[in-house]
Amino acid sequence: MVEVFHWPLRVYIEDTDAGGIVYYVNYLKFMERARTEFLRSLGFGKAFIFDADRMFVVHSLSSEYVKPARLDDELFATVRTLEAARTFVRLEQQVLLQHSGELLCRGEVKLACVDKATIKPRRVPDAIVEALSAG
Amino acid sequence: MVEVFHWPLRVYIEDTDAGGIVYYVNYLKFMERARTEFLRSLGFGKAFIFDADRMFVVHSLSSEYVKPARLDDELFATVRTLEAARTFVRLEQQVLLQHSGELLCRGEVKLACVDKATIKPRRVPDAIVEALSAG
Amino acid sequence: MVEVFHWPLRVYIEDTDAGGIVYYVNYLKFMERARTEFLRSLGFGKAFIFDADRMFVVHSLSSEYVKPARLDDELFATVRTLEAARTFVRLEQQVLLQHSGELLCRGEVKLACVDKATIKPRRVPDAIVEALSAG
Amino acid sequence: MVEVFHWPLRVYIEDTDAGGIVYYVNYLKFMERARTEFLRSLGFGKAFIFDADRMFVVHSLSSEYVKPARLDDELFATVRTLEAARTFVRLEQQVLLQHSGELLCRGEVKLACVDKATIKPRRVPDAIVEALSAG
Repeated sequence: MVEVFHWPLRVYIEDTDAGGIVYYVNYLKFMERARTEFLRSLGFGKAFIFDADRMFVVHSLSSEYVKPARLDDELFATVRTLEAARTFVRLEQQVLLQHSGELLCRGEVKLACVDKATIKPRRVPDAIVEALSAG
Repeated sequence: MVEVFHWPLRVYIEDTDAGGIVYYVNYLKFMERARTEFLRSLGFGKAFIFDADRMFVVHSLSSEYVKPARLDDELFATVRTLEAARTFVRLEQQVLLQHSGELLCRGEVKLACVDKATIKPRRVPDAIVEALSAG
Repeated sequence: MVEVFHWPLRVYIEDTDAGGIVYYVNYLKFMERARTEFLRSLGFGKAFIFDADRMFVVHSLSSEYVKPARLDDELFATVRTLEAARTFVRLEQQVLLQHSGELLCRGEVKLACVDKATIKPRRVPDAIVEALSAG
Repeated sequence: MVEVFHWPLRVYIEDTDAGGIVYYVNYLKFMERARTEFLRSLGFGKAFIFDADRMFVVHSLSSEYVKPARLDDELFATVRTLEAARTFVRLEQQVLLQHSGELLCRGEVKLACVDKATIKPRRVPDAIVEALSAG
């Protein structure tokens, strides 16, 4: 069975727009918070973010909006590894309503591993490939 | 002894700016999340937000920046009642670094209670005045 | 020759992140500003936004990041119609550097036309289909 | 007669919240865009932002909300120098409705001049003090 990482979220007024719902762009922030916490849960937190000479940058993403979230809703965002390759990682992410489990938004993100100084492609650290492949 | 409400926060990349620190405007979002949770902790959560014919709007605010927060920092925001008057509430808020307790940002917010339809001043619900006065 | 709509933009500190570049999520805001002005340029401005019983919602989007923009850069965002169907519209958008014309970010957005009250699919107004098909 | 600097703005969906109005925090972004353009108009644009060893940081701010702006409104933000001192500058800013000139939001910002590396107080460059004093 594949374990899927979950991160809880609450919708605040800052997340909404004049349509009375979560501004669609902000689901990408929700997904990124979950990715950050997912990597932290695998041991790639502060040290990875600040000390490594490599970093992840978003290469491309896609998202699909199924149902809107509203002010004060409790949500959770999930992260699942689709592919952990030599120079990039592809993740599938979902944002769901806490109490019902309904899917609100689905996304896919490709993170490229690059050199912090030159922004040239670099190998994803082995420890991360391993951790993601096991996930 | 006056109990001060605390709300934990983590700094994500979305919160930062090109100065490498938390964008000063975003502390106001941090403070608002804490205010929302403070009111929820007093019993004024979803029901108050959605069912009442009154709402709080920000009348005015001030903030002072003492020390910057950085990516991945763990913070907490506090809320303390300064005044619970007939038609408004004044709160003092701080954002501090979790591990050291250092003060990063201090703010004061005046919330006016208004009619949801007309945006005219209304009395703050008695239950809220009481809860804030006790806080 | 296909005319492509252009909208000028400036990068402010609010748009950047701790990487010193435009936060990738914010390109979607840039693209939306351009879409809004594109529709306005075709005659679907305030009146369409507020008076119609139909509205556009973002059904899905994808974006690809080619090169980062930096603080104070002058950019422009483009809009080109890919498809104007009965109940949805697909647009291709780019964000480019003003002085060199270099491509920074490319996106595709599918907007669904829905009923404002029920959020059920509705026909895209004929005038918009016509205007987009001619564009 | 004192000339007041104006910067035009349009309210997009990204600026609004579930109250159907501009999210109060976002007026501070509007004001900052105007400040940036004000400094640029005085000759302190890209070169000042990137080449100097000094920079301005926001020391403190206050804002007061008079009337809400709504989606698609055309606004302008103003900047007026209150004080140009040795190590800081105080500016008064307003956000007004374009067509009527109605005041929506009023703010005051104190910018401290600091060393880019050490974040210690530094003198405001003479040229800026002069330009602001004349303004």
